[in-house]
Amino acid sequence: MEENTPELLIIYTTKNGRTGGMVESIRQGIIDGGGTVITRRVDEVQWEEMLAAEGIIVGTPVRFGGVDWEIKRLFDVTAFQGYPGPLDGKVGGAFVGGGRPGGGAELCLLSMLHILLNHGMVIQGHALSTHYGPVMLRDTPQEEIDLICNAWGQHWTALVHRLYRSD
Amino acid sequence: MEENTPELLIIYTTKNGRTGGMVESIRQGIIDGGGTVITRRVDEVQWEEMLAAEGIIVGTPVRFGGVDWEIKRLFDVTAFQGYPGPLDGKVGGAFVGGGRPGGGAELCLLSMLHILLNHGMVIQGHALSTHYGPVMLRDTPQEEIDLICNAWGQHWTALVHRLYRSD
Amino acid sequence: MEENTPELLIIYTTKNGRTGGMVESIRQGIIDGGGTVITRRVDEVQWEEMLAAEGIIVGTPVRFGGVDWEIKRLFDVTAFQGYPGPLDGKVGGAFVGGGRPGGGAELCLLSMLHILLNHGMVIQGHALSTHYGPVMLRDTPQEEIDLICNAWGQHWTALVHRLYRSD
Amino acid sequence: MEENTPELLIIYTTKNGRTGGMVESIRQGIIDGGGTVITRRVDEVQWEEMLAAEGIIVGTPVRFGGVDWEIKRLFDVTAFQGYPGPLDGKVGGAFVGGGRPGGGAELCLLSMLHILLNHGMVIQGHALSTHYGPVMLRDTPQEEIDLICNAWGQHWTALVHRLYRSD
Repeated sequence: MEENTPELLIIYTTKNGRTGGMVESIRQGIIDGGGTVITRRVDEVQWEEMLAAEGIIVGTPVRFGGVDWEIKRLFDVTAFQGYPGPLDGKVGGAFVGGGRPGGGAELCLLSMLHILLNHGMVIQGHALSTHYGPVMLRDTPQEEIDLICNAWGQHWTALVHRLYRSD
Repeated sequence: MEENTPELLIIYTTKNGRTGGMVESIRQGIIDGGGTVITRRVDEVQWEEMLAAEGIIVGTPVRFGGVDWEIKRLFDVTAFQGYPGPLDGKVGGAFVGGGRPGGGAELCLLSMLHILLNHGMVIQGHALSTHYGPVMLRDTPQEEIDLICNAWGQHWTALVHRLYRSD
Repeated sequence: MEENTPELLIIYTTKNGRTGGMVESIRQGIIDGGGTVITRRVDEVQWEEMLAAEGIIVGTPVRFGGVDWEIKRLFDVTAFQGYPGPLDGKVGGAFVGGGRPGGGAELCLLSMLHILLNHGMVIQGHALSTHYGPVMLRDTPQEEIDLICNAWGQHWTALVHRLYRSD
Repeated sequence: MEENTPELLIIYTTKNGRTGGMVESIRQGIIDGGGTVITRRVDEVQWEEMLAAEGIIVGTPVRFGGVDWEIKRLFDVTAFQGYPGPLDGKVGGAFVGGGRPGGGAELCLLSMLHILLNHGMVIQGHALSTHYGPVMLRDTPQEEIDLICNAWGQHWTALVHRLYRSD
């Protein structure tokens, strides 16, 4: 990896600001874990940035129990270039801002993970936090979100380092 | 349907009491909706009761993002009798007691719905409440649970009546 | 329902022709079941047609284990009008053209059903056929597809009639 | 890891022999990939063997769109010991024997992966094969199964080596 290429890339879109409000805590968690990171909105991310990253973390609001259509378009169209292959073996992760429990946030998160698994990416669960990635609902207290997002930022960084830096 | 056979059957198991704590509000919602109902624990329900009901509602605690193994055994072993066929066309539903958002409650709920769909049962979502069935987490206030469970009890009853009583 | 409004609406998009190739057999199954139907491509369907139908059946190719982004946009943007409410209580269904077993076709089908459940729609599984809706893979023989799609067309029509015509 | 402890542990159960029929090809793939492996049936595996392995691969027949209840019991009861924690960071994987396309095999596979993610395990998708793990249906030709299972055996071994042997 080139000197100045960040290890992790966060791609996200937001609807009411909830998903966007998780980005900074995740970014900080990655830095706290000793990683480097850039963040991009879904409409500004470049395919070359996706190719360069060792880990790609995608944030989406819940839209009818699935990922936002612009996120889906990014993977159906942009990330379809050269598929299968180019994202294989990278770390993948997802985070979601939702409404209330049972409102589809977990289904949305898993749909995003399915996309990443299709590309051959590496996913890790978390036994001690939210299990599949950070989920922020309407009533989640900010400090709980910060804790969970920070923990996941560190978790993803640790996996990138375990896979790419252990030599 | 015989004179005294209840329309809806609630089958449930509970781990810390959270799932069990939803039963009464759901039962009340069914009665408020003009329906009749019996409740059975997973280890006491009879196959004949499942055959007699017009709607079967199953409650399970979240166990590693899936349904409790005793609930699974009920369907893998008991409800396997005469499959496919005997539960076809009945109303199905599920409710789940879980821990925190992102802890697997929605995945568990959907796994239960998959089982019911396999049997040819009829499922309805809810646009105005939790979308797939009631989900109660550790921090959900009791009044919110009562509201959601009652609404779902009425929702399931309305579907049973729409399917079986419109003549 | 007005005299000439079809009961069922099929909305679909296709990638390699496999999903599109299922439409005619489903349409025929609906007619064989005594129903009326119109078919629309995702880029031509009108919101008014969705409002008028008693059942909406959506066909999508598998795209990374999820629904095609244009289908997702239809529901995120067009069908978001007046949500929640306008599609509540209608029959919903999905069909999918995919590649090989384990290639994501079932996950895609279920993602589509999640969207429909969010709207409060009514879904029925099938104990005697593919359980959640028709799935056609690369190696599925045409006669098997025709059988399954026809059976599901009849299945959906029967549910529409059971819900709307039993008086 | 002790001298003679196998790196990978395959745990499985079988119903009609289809899931069991995948074990040998997966085992061979692991060996072809340079790994070591033991296989255990669900009723004979020891918790200590699960603790000792660096990767745990679980095979289950499709049972109503979910994992077999005995597999579920293994994780709900046996693997609940010391949870969360003891399986964290290990490689996880799943394989499934099913009936026909749309019969629930993918849903079952994903349910198994959810369990493993709950434990903090590391999952990798496959861009060039079945995406989430090997799936064998009634009509899948034996040579295709052997190819897919062998490829996945090698894939899992490569991930174990990448995570544990890169020093």
